[in-house]
Amino acid sequence: MASSTTRRRTTKVTTPRTPAPVVIECVEPELDAGRYPVKRIVGDTFEVRADILKDGHDLLAARIKYSGPVDGEWHFVPMFYDQNSDQWVGSFRVDRAGRWMYTVESWTDRFGTWRSEIQKKIGAGHDVSSELLEGAEIIDAAARRARFGDARNELRAAALIIRDGRLSGAERVAAALDAQLHTLLDDNYSPPDLTCYVRELEVWVDRERAAFASWYELFPRSQTTDADRHGTFLSTAFALPRIAELGFDVVYLPPVHPVGISARKGPNNSLAAGPDDPGSPWAIGNDAGGHTAVEPKLGTLEDFDTLVATAAELGLEIALDYALQCSPDHPWLKQHPEWFFVRPDGTIKYAENPPKKYQDIYPLNFWCDDREGLWNACRDILMFWIDHGVHTFRVDNPHTKPFAFWEWVIGEVHAKYPDVVFLAEAFTRPRTMKLLAKLGFSQSYTYFTWKNSTAELRDWWAEMHNAESLEYMRGNLFANTPDILHEYLQHFGRPAFRVRLLLAATMSPLYGIYSGFELNENAPVRPGSEEYLDSEKYQIRVRDYKAPGNLNGDVKLLNAIRRDNSALQRMDNLVFRESENPQIVFFTKTAPGWRNDLLIIANVDPTRAQETVVTVPLAELGLDPDIPYVVEDLLTGARYSWRGARNYIRLDPNLQPGHIFRLQR
Amino acid sequence: MASSTTRRRTTKVTTPRTPAPVVIECVEPELDAGRYPVKRIVGDTFEVRADILKDGHDLLAARIKYSGPVDGEWHFVPMFYDQNSDQWVGSFRVDRAGRWMYTVESWTDRFGTWRSEIQKKIGAGHDVSSELLEGAEIIDAAARRARFGDARNELRAAALIIRDGRLSGAERVAAALDAQLHTLLDDNYSPPDLTCYVRELEVWVDRERAAFASWYELFPRSQTTDADRHGTFLSTAFALPRIAELGFDVVYLPPVHPVGISARKGPNNSLAAGPDDPGSPWAIGNDAGGHTAVEPKLGTLEDFDTLVATAAELGLEIALDYALQCSPDHPWLKQHPEWFFVRPDGTIKYAENPPKKYQDIYPLNFWCDDREGLWNACRDILMFWIDHGVHTFRVDNPHTKPFAFWEWVIGEVHAKYPDVVFLAEAFTRPRTMKLLAKLGFSQSYTYFTWKNSTAELRDWWAEMHNAESLEYMRGNLFANTPDILHEYLQHFGRPAFRVRLLLAATMSPLYGIYSGFELNENAPVRPGSEEYLDSEKYQIRVRDYKAPGNLNGDVKLLNAIRRDNSALQRMDNLVFRESENPQIVFFTKTAPGWRNDLLIIANVDPTRAQETVVTVPLAELGLDPDIPYVVEDLLTGARYSWRGARNYIRLDPNLQPGHIFRLQR
Repeated sequence: MASSTTRRRTTKVTTPRTPAPVVIECVEPELDAGRYPVKRIVGDTFEVRADILKDGHDLLAARIKYSGPVDGEWHFVPMFYDQNSDQWVGSFRVDRAGRWMYTVESWTDRFGTWRSEIQKKIGAGHDVSSELLEGAEIIDAAARRARFGDARNELRAAALIIRDGRLSGAERVAAALDAQLHTLLDDNYSPPDLTCYVRELEVWVDRERAAFASWYELFPRSQTTDADRHGTFLSTAFALPRIAELGFDVVYLPPVHPVGISARKGPNNSLAAGPDDPGSPWAIGNDAGGHTAVEPKLGTLEDFDTLVATAAELGLEIALDYALQCSPDHPWLKQHPEWFFVRPDGTIKYAENPPKKYQDIYPLNFWCDDREGLWNACRDILMFWIDHGVHTFRVDNPHTKPFAFWEWVIGEVHAKYPDVVFLAEAFTRPRTMKLLAKLGFSQSYTYFTWKNSTAELRDWWAEMHNAESLEYMRGNLFANTPDILHEYLQHFGRPAFRVRLLLAATMSPLYGIYSGFELNENAPVRPGSEEYLDSEKYQIRVRDYKAPGNLNGDVKLLNAIRRDNSALQRMDNLVFRESENPQIVFFTKTAPGWRNDLLIIANVDPTRAQETVVTVPLAELGLDPDIPYVVEDLLTGARYSWRGARNYIRLDPNLQPGHIFRLQR
Repeated sequence: MASSTTRRRTTKVTTPRTPAPVVIECVEPELDAGRYPVKRIVGDTFEVRADILKDGHDLLAARIKYSGPVDGEWHFVPMFYDQNSDQWVGSFRVDRAGRWMYTVESWTDRFGTWRSEIQKKIGAGHDVSSELLEGAEIIDAAARRARFGDARNELRAAALIIRDGRLSGAERVAAALDAQLHTLLDDNYSPPDLTCYVRELEVWVDRERAAFASWYELFPRSQTTDADRHGTFLSTAFALPRIAELGFDVVYLPPVHPVGISARKGPNNSLAAGPDDPGSPWAIGNDAGGHTAVEPKLGTLEDFDTLVATAAELGLEIALDYALQCSPDHPWLKQHPEWFFVRPDGTIKYAENPPKKYQDIYPLNFWCDDREGLWNACRDILMFWIDHGVHTFRVDNPHTKPFAFWEWVIGEVHAKYPDVVFLAEAFTRPRTMKLLAKLGFSQSYTYFTWKNSTAELRDWWAEMHNAESLEYMRGNLFANTPDILHEYLQHFGRPAFRVRLLLAATMSPLYGIYSGFELNENAPVRPGSEEYLDSEKYQIRVRDYKAPGNLNGDVKLLNAIRRDNSALQRMDNLVFRESENPQIVFFTKTAPGWRNDLLIIANVDPTRAQETVVTVPLAELGLDPDIPYVVEDLLTGARYSWRGARNYIRLDPNLQPGHIFRLQR
């Protein structure tokens, strides 16, 4: 592009229109200069901090100005000066899901300043007759603005007394310093130098399950006892009690739409599909319909509604896949060829990542001339399933669709349904994963699956869950997916599955497994591949969930422990601690006020027993180095009496993957 | 103030008007969302970084858009992708003092993307006839926008060849991949998705002396050989050669204006001044004039001009004090009583900080009804002295005047005279000191005087000179001032003076001393006070600058070393290093590309010899642990051959305060 010079706009960066004595800056939290909202959960106490500065010695006052969703009013809550941080601090409770706004206001506390100065002068024995008159002026000013007659009268009366030369100084001072007068004045004082922070900021408030939930992924087609009989929505409904029993919250289904026929993939991703092969559910659409239809083999929309209703009765929630791509047979190719990429010869382009070709998938052209029509159609897919009771969506490869689309479509949905949850399946550059979270995704897949050593876990956590990203990013730690069977699981079997489950379920309040995990399924399609052998993506898999060696016990126990321990229900409280042996990872999860303090210790070496000495952060936990304390292992019920910081640990992966020690208070 | 609710404005936080495929965020440097400029020095290479993201696999292009002072044009320089940081990076040279603006633009490199994809497909042996046609379309689009006839023709010709079915695929591909065509296209392509970062940012560029200078403070009244004879501008001019000889750059004079008579302070701040007592020069104004007049005892304005001219000949610069306060005799009290605080009884208020009273000082009311008149008058004081050749001002207590005033008045001056330097004398909360720097002050006094131990120095440096504050804050490390004689100097005498001088002159490119320091003057007015005995603030002090024990040698040598070593001319390169004995501080100052690497080691215990082992950061300095390297002490000329990281140091404060080792390459 040409580097020619062009005329410069002389717009200046924002400065206050009229100069103000009070400066408000560095408001926290604030994400990218208010470009994006931070995130919280219904019921959270939202704390706001600000630097507030004025020249000289005047006392200041400040307040948070905030407003809830569908709430045309501003509300106010006072802020207080915090000596330690040299910041002003205040908070309010976000008790409803949706978009809240907040900013900070400050002004000179003229009467308070006057009050403290006259007190000092009286203390020093100075004559304060002139100061009394100044006070009376402030009171008059307030009286002029008082809204209620009696307030006005009381203020006027006070001013008269304070001015009254016939009274003794003591009487006038007493009237001036009267506490009730102070309150009356605060209530009626409207400061000439009221200053508002330059930006109005946003906090997006989600329902609790957006931040704390246990996920289970299954293929409805496989909910059958016979590989020749295609599972259905109804057979899936019968499978739900087992999943509820295991303690899960969300059941995520891959696409349930009609599966493409042209170029359908056969078992193990073979190019030639047999007549009975179900094909990949991500090849969406055929003559039976597209993204708002269901695969006939699964049943009818009514059956789907039954599934959703059954789940609800069991306290489960059905999550659907939102995969914006089409099979060659998707109705949109005929109805809206203009929504796709068209070659000069007029044919529609299939997906490719040169030199790779994906003839069974046709990508949408989000910047086509009928952008509005396409984007609305994509939004309406979500609205359709929301109407059928689905309020959680797992979004397939969002990083291959425009960021602007996600901000728009999530905004459209949230404006009407603030309780809808979006999980981003974005395995890409961390900056892009974070951007998607900023744009509105409630949760994100992470690289957890590939982080198996202590060092890997520490580095990955520090990058994705640091203080700044925790304001908007929530990692959902899937231990496996239909696309990812990590070699760690392939090589080390059951002990590896157990420790990975323990880590996923304790590190983050959001975690999940894809069915088969609890059966330690770990055969890859070929050595070096992370794809499953006989992957369920291309064929029906029948399972015996009671098979020996299953992890049902672990799963059930961990999900119960998560429900019972508030420290496992938040993301911002994980701190890695010192363990002398890198094969044993040690981290704490704590709740404010030492209400629920967990010491989590896991052996990341599934091949042999490991020993270490861990260093318990006594001071942070308020423990006396000389007084013994008791920790109870929530996994086994065993109790240990410890003393001091350094404690010995031995973990044999064939017996136990780790400990979840709860500190007894 | 009332907590009633008010209607909420429903203005939304800025989002792009029309959705764009490219996202530009986290531009660096950016200070408080562009509210304030960052600072640089004339001749600096200014580096800009940005996160630039787009969905999918398209190649991106980006450029910095910038513009210099009094320069109506935008200029452009390309940015490049940096794999390590996953950021885009570019830079340009700021070769003129003043306000520069910059932002970032990015777009999809459509032709480049097409080019790399067709290359991959050719490599994989695919048929690319359809791709060739797509390429031709991109070329046509560019041709339509080409500004020069021949460019247009060349593009059209290329498109024709590429479309020409009669030619062989090889020929058409060759034409499509032609390098010259690629350049031609880049020059003429105007991208439909050109995206600009949401804000235009500013960088303020100062002349070099704003960031690198040695300061010397003196009282002209004392430039005399006889305490009964008041020093003058002319006698001060005679004193300048000595100061130039010592290697200083800036000579700072306390206020030179007529000194108030009413309530004039006598020696040692006594309330009763004798008839011949000169009084405090900070009590500004009497019948002879105010801030734009000179004290008659010092001479005339013409004499002052002579002083400024003499300084210039010696390569020195005169800095004046800008103290916005008035003595009771200042002409403004009569001419503009409305500019002051008036009591209900009509009298004008003197300064007080209850219960303390300062009857000899009258503060200005910057928010009086005639704010415009007062602020203009204050600005015109600066303009007056600038016209008399003063381009550096030391500002007295800026934190007791409105922040808005400073942003305005510095802006007014800099718009006309971008080379003017402002030093803030703000000993207050760090946040306030930083705010003043953001608002435009070129330099700031710091708490250096009170930081004498290694731990104090480290903590103070980390707070005031961290990566963020270094973008706008420059500490001027005065080792003493007329108000601050630290007990460290009072108790430990000459060895203490020497180490403090060494630290001030090496830690920061900006440092200063107040005259008498080089004579180890350290008698306090009373035990526990930081005020000097017989303070020059209230009386004339005659000195013998050749007195035995003087530090002229140290001062001269350090100022020379500062001139010769670029590492001592910047602020952002100080790193504290490991020294086993906390009584010996060790830090490095390095220049890019290992051109000038200094290891500075000082004994902060002036009472006895100390030993330590320092750890040299070999890797950072590119040193091989097994190969000896030579360090030369710039203070003594002694050379040592070291090997490996750990080296022994012994420092006897009576012989030598420390080392400035320069690494020999």
